[in-house]
Amino acid sequence: MINAYAAREPKGELTPFEYDPGDLNAHDVEIDVEYCGICHSDLSVLDSEWGRTNYPMVPGHEVVGKIAAIGDQVNGLAIGDRVGLGWHAGSCDHCDMCDTGDHNLCSQSQPTIMGRHGGFADRVRAAGNSVIKLPEGMDAQSAGPLFCGGITVFNPLVQFDVKPTDRVAVIGIGGLGHMALQFLNAWGCDVTAFTSSEDKRDELLSMGAHHVLNSRDAEQLKQASGSFDMIISTVNVKLDWNSYLGTLAPRGRLHFVGAALDPLDIGVFNMMGKQLSVSASTIGSPATIKQMLEFANLHNIKPIIETYKFDDVNAAVERLRSGKARYRVVLER
Amino acid sequence: MINAYAAREPKGELTPFEYDPGDLNAHDVEIDVEYCGICHSDLSVLDSEWGRTNYPMVPGHEVVGKIAAIGDQVNGLAIGDRVGLGWHAGSCDHCDMCDTGDHNLCSQSQPTIMGRHGGFADRVRAAGNSVIKLPEGMDAQSAGPLFCGGITVFNPLVQFDVKPTDRVAVIGIGGLGHMALQFLNAWGCDVTAFTSSEDKRDELLSMGAHHVLNSRDAEQLKQASGSFDMIISTVNVKLDWNSYLGTLAPRGRLHFVGAALDPLDIGVFNMMGKQLSVSASTIGSPATIKQMLEFANLHNIKPIIETYKFDDVNAAVERLRSGKARYRVVLER
Repeated sequence: MINAYAAREPKGELTPFEYDPGDLNAHDVEIDVEYCGICHSDLSVLDSEWGRTNYPMVPGHEVVGKIAAIGDQVNGLAIGDRVGLGWHAGSCDHCDMCDTGDHNLCSQSQPTIMGRHGGFADRVRAAGNSVIKLPEGMDAQSAGPLFCGGITVFNPLVQFDVKPTDRVAVIGIGGLGHMALQFLNAWGCDVTAFTSSEDKRDELLSMGAHHVLNSRDAEQLKQASGSFDMIISTVNVKLDWNSYLGTLAPRGRLHFVGAALDPLDIGVFNMMGKQLSVSASTIGSPATIKQMLEFANLHNIKPIIETYKFDDVNAAVERLRSGKARYRVVLER
Repeated sequence: MINAYAAREPKGELTPFEYDPGDLNAHDVEIDVEYCGICHSDLSVLDSEWGRTNYPMVPGHEVVGKIAAIGDQVNGLAIGDRVGLGWHAGSCDHCDMCDTGDHNLCSQSQPTIMGRHGGFADRVRAAGNSVIKLPEGMDAQSAGPLFCGGITVFNPLVQFDVKPTDRVAVIGIGGLGHMALQFLNAWGCDVTAFTSSEDKRDELLSMGAHHVLNSRDAEQLKQASGSFDMIISTVNVKLDWNSYLGTLAPRGRLHFVGAALDPLDIGVFNMMGKQLSVSASTIGSPATIKQMLEFANLHNIKPIIETYKFDDVNAAVERLRSGKARYRVVLER
C-alpha cells in the first residue's frame, strides 16, 4: 500500500489516503519519495481549474527520491538510484514525438497528477523513461523544483536556440522566474528582470539579472524599445502584451511559460515589421531535463526553497497560495 | 523630369504627375520602368489606411525595368541590366540588421512608396543594394509580383527553416496564396490550400496544392487536428485562430503574412501543450530575394497575372479593389 495525502474535492484539505498500486508494470519504477516540490499547477489541478481532476487527488510532480522497485523492462536505472520525476509519468512510446525523444509532446502523455497519483506520498510510480537520475553531487533537497519549474524555463533556451550573445528579459520573478534568471546568466546572456516588486531589486541582481525594470511602468517599457531577443513571461495575469512586443528586437520572441488565462489580444501589425514570434511551452523532454540537470549542477544553479515536513502539507500549500513563498516550496520527510 | 501617376488625396484617382528627382545620389540607380505590379499595400497607402501617406502619392513597388543611370558608389549593377525593385528602396546601411544583410529589418528602411515616389512612372530611383537583377531567362512581364508578394510568402520558408518533409497549409489563395502554393510544392512539402472559394479547387490543385479544405468549415478544421507544421495566412479578415492552432502539429507555427487588422485573441493555453508559435512578417532581405528569384526560375514558378497598360492605371486599381483579379495585376508600357 502507498500512503499519500489527497484532496477529496476542489480546494479540499489534504488528508491521509492509502491506495494499492497493484503489481509493478514492467516499464515502471517505484520511487521512495524523499522530497517533493509544490508547483502552481498542483494548485490548479487540486482546485480543478482545468476541469479534468479526479478525486481523491494526490498532488506532487517535483519528486526526488530513490528507486525502490524496478520493472523487468526498465533500462539504465537500478534500485537505490536517486532520481527525479516531473510533470509526466509516462507516454505512448510509439508516436512520432516519442520516437524522436519528445515524449513531453506526445498527445497520450500521462501527467503525474492527472489520472495517476502524485508524489505527496511515501512512494510514487512512473514509467522508467520519465524518471531521470540526479547528477553526482547535486543537492537533493532543492532539486525537486528543477523537474517542473526548472525545465519549464530552461526548455525555451534549447528549443528556440537562444545564444549567449542574446539579450533576454524575464517577466515575473517568482518560482519560475528566479530559476530563469540563474539559467540565463549562466547561459551567457544579457539578462533583464521585469518585476512589479521593486524591493526585490538587489536580490534579483544577485540571482543573475544585469538589469531590473518595473513591469508596470510604461516609461521603462518605452525606453527598452527594440531591446530584447527574447522575453520569457512567467506570469498568469494580463499585461499590455503589445507594449512588450515593442521592446523586442527584430526576429524577437515573446514566450509564455506562465499560463495567462486571458486571450493575448496581439496585433499582427505589431509583429510584422520586425518579424516577431509569440509562443508558449511547458516543461521539456527527458533528454532536455538531463541537459538541464547537468547544466544546473555545473553552474551551481539551485531553486531557492522553503521546506515543510510532509505532515505539514496543508500549511505548505497555503504558503504557496499566499504568493509569499520565496521562491519555491518543498516538502521533506 | 519623371512622368508618374499620382493620387492627390485618399482614394483619389491617379492622374499624371511630373516631378524632378534631382541629381542622382551616388548609391542610387534609376530604373527605366517596363512593368509594375499592383499590390494590396499600394491600396493601403493610396487610401492612407496606415495614416502615414503624403500626397501626391505615386504607388508601385513591384517594379521590373532596366537600369538607365547609376551612381558612382553602386557595385554589381550596370546600365542596361534588367532588375526588380520591391517594397524597400533603401536602408541605413550601418545598423546591426543592415550589417548582417537583413536590410528589410532596418528600422530606418525606406518604403518605395512612402516618403518616396514609386513605380507607376516611366522611371523610378532606389538604392543600388535594394535592386536585384533578374536571373537569366526569367519572364520579365510576370516577375514584378515576385518582388513583394512573392518574397513575402517565400521568406518564411527560409526564416523558419521549413523542411521538405513538412506539412504546410496556406489560408487564402489570392495574389499571395497562389504563389505560396507554387513555392511550397517546389520546396517538397505536403501542401494544403484553405480557401472559401470551393470553385477554385481544381485550379488550386494545379498550382501545387495536394489537398484543398474549406477555410470556413469547422468540421474540416476538426478533421485536420494536429496536422500541420506550419500554416501561412495571407488573409486580412478575422478567422477562428484558436481553431487553426488546433490543426497544428507539435512545434507548429501559425504565420501571418496578411495584415489581419483585428487583434488575434489567441489563448496561451492553446499554444502551451504543443509548444506552438504565432508569428508575422513581410517581404525579406535582398539576399533572400535573390534566392527566391533563382528558386522561382529553376522551378518555373510564376505569378498568374492580368495586365493593363499604364494609361489604364485606374481601371487596373479598380480591378484589384474588386477582389476578382486572378491573381495579380501588372501594369505594362
